[in-house]
Amino acid sequence: MSAASWSEFELIARLTAGLPLGEEVVVGVGDDCAVLDLGGSRLLLLTCDSQVEGVHFTLRTSSPEEVGHKALAINLSDIAAMGGEPRYALVSLHVPRHCPLEVLEGLYAGLRQEATAARTLIVGGNVSGTGAAETLALDITLLGESERGRVLTRAGARAGDTIFVTGSPGDSAAGLYSLLDPDHPYPPAACERLRAAHRVPKPRLAEGRLLSQLGPQIVTALIDVSDGLSGDLGHICERSGVGACIEVARLPISAELRALAATLGRDPLAWVLHGGEDYELLFTVAPGYEEAVQARFAAAGAAPITPIGQVTEAASGLRLRWPDGREEPLPVQSWDHFASPGQH
Amino acid sequence: MSAASWSEFELIARLTAGLPLGEEVVVGVGDDCAVLDLGGSRLLLLTCDSQVEGVHFTLRTSSPEEVGHKALAINLSDIAAMGGEPRYALVSLHVPRHCPLEVLEGLYAGLRQEATAARTLIVGGNVSGTGAAETLALDITLLGESERGRVLTRAGARAGDTIFVTGSPGDSAAGLYSLLDPDHPYPPAACERLRAAHRVPKPRLAEGRLLSQLGPQIVTALIDVSDGLSGDLGHICERSGVGACIEVARLPISAELRALAATLGRDPLAWVLHGGEDYELLFTVAPGYEEAVQARFAAAGAAPITPIGQVTEAASGLRLRWPDGREEPLPVQSWDHFASPGQH
Repeated sequence: MSAASWSEFELIARLTAGLPLGEEVVVGVGDDCAVLDLGGSRLLLLTCDSQVEGVHFTLRTSSPEEVGHKALAINLSDIAAMGGEPRYALVSLHVPRHCPLEVLEGLYAGLRQEATAARTLIVGGNVSGTGAAETLALDITLLGESERGRVLTRAGARAGDTIFVTGSPGDSAAGLYSLLDPDHPYPPAACERLRAAHRVPKPRLAEGRLLSQLGPQIVTALIDVSDGLSGDLGHICERSGVGACIEVARLPISAELRALAATLGRDPLAWVLHGGEDYELLFTVAPGYEEAVQARFAAAGAAPITPIGQVTEAASGLRLRWPDGREEPLPVQSWDHFASPGQH
Repeated sequence: MSAASWSEFELIARLTAGLPLGEEVVVGVGDDCAVLDLGGSRLLLLTCDSQVEGVHFTLRTSSPEEVGHKALAINLSDIAAMGGEPRYALVSLHVPRHCPLEVLEGLYAGLRQEATAARTLIVGGNVSGTGAAETLALDITLLGESERGRVLTRAGARAGDTIFVTGSPGDSAAGLYSLLDPDHPYPPAACERLRAAHRVPKPRLAEGRLLSQLGPQIVTALIDVSDGLSGDLGHICERSGVGACIEVARLPISAELRALAATLGRDPLAWVLHGGEDYELLFTVAPGYEEAVQARFAAAGAAPITPIGQVTEAASGLRLRWPDGREEPLPVQSWDHFASPGQH
């Protein structure tokens, strides 16, 4: 039995089963961040995530600066997905012998810009060789903070809640598709924006803070869309012990994604539902608070949010409702870290 | 210009030059840990370090459990090297597709045992694929704590201080040598102990705490010996703006290292001075406090410590004094993360 027989989530669950936790561990393995209560006025958020050449990026399709931006952005997104504020970063680089210095300097330039924009300080790190492997990798650890009682997890969704998503999921995966098949005559402006969504995703930090201020009584569960809408909704359902029904007619689909899908003769829906690496926020809102949340986002000039379905009882599982009222199970097709970039 | 033209330390210095720091960053890039003052009663220590297959370990010479132990131990040693207490760990794994599940379970078993022994909780992590690369890697981030005013850095050594080291440096490198050249008829008991020192180093956490309790007025600088005695003494000298003179006659050399060196017809000194991965503590003590420190270690039943030389003015550089009074420059031959394991 090899690692490839298991999904990333199955592997983590198997390896970390039964890990001891202390009283001060508010949230352990299994959410976007660990949450620690060290007795100060605020809670500490801890997260780490990797970007590996040939798995998460290639230097054929992204510049070193873009890779640096994204490596930090995906970790910032994990802090956003708990409603927290990022504070400090550690940067661990695995550097092949023959990696040009300019690549590393480009990476770090991207990291610095992203850190500055997010008011995050890079306070340490590590550089290691890679031996015979020619694969560049970055591991970023991020430490953030949140107010007591304001941390949002994946675990609080209840039947009857409304499911919302920020922005327009699917753009990143469509952008990647166009990068991997560059010879098709895509509409240039649309293509450029979708590729940018893939190369340099914007973590929804301000939106995560807004949701945190609304609090867990109103915003019952929160996650960022890194594995794809269906996969990450599945994570909320699993941790909350609920089901969910997504209404196809309500899914936000960007004009750019529609334009690109049209030139390919494809339905954009697969990208919207299963495309990974959007780093939008997916969250559930208690009944009666939907309009208040939308008003709050509009007043703050935050990203657009769209109600896309309802939380249901666990027995219903994940379902998709078509405009004609027909329902069918929604398959979870998550980004698989053991697959090649072209396969997800 | 490629990464291999630079040492790990040159690369880090170049990439992180001029990073902005906030008021709350007590120590940033360039020591064993970052130290953060988040306003609570204690300071926060943050560190990360990697173990990469073919660079830091091979599964031919270490079991998966041993690799897990060591990956956490080297990070625990960074906390010890600031005088802190480890608290929480994040584990990031880079897993090749064909990696057997038993290897990962072995790794995690070693990590769990080491964490339990150090009263450290594993609270999160990440699993990533490696694409075409067949190289297993672990990145561990460790969060620790220390009392205000008790953090020990590399930066406080002054001319006239005495240099001490715990245990017997060189054992790990000699153990690695015997693993890479297994066919020589080594003395079995000695060989086994030296190999254990390499495979499963014991972080000097209790000793780091003792030094922290003595405080920075007495223990003026502290580092762990990961790069080799000469290299890590060089780090103290650089950060403290001093020189150092090591007395050859005072260097502690274990009976096992002497026995192994004898069967090879080699001088053990090169291993003691330049062998990496000992994870002993190297520290400097203000004049007049040498005996008090030794008495404190003896009373606590801590590791043996040995005075091995004196801190000097910066202009003298790093020097070695032979028993006949002759002095010569001490070359720094650090572990190089871009070299293969057999070359350091």
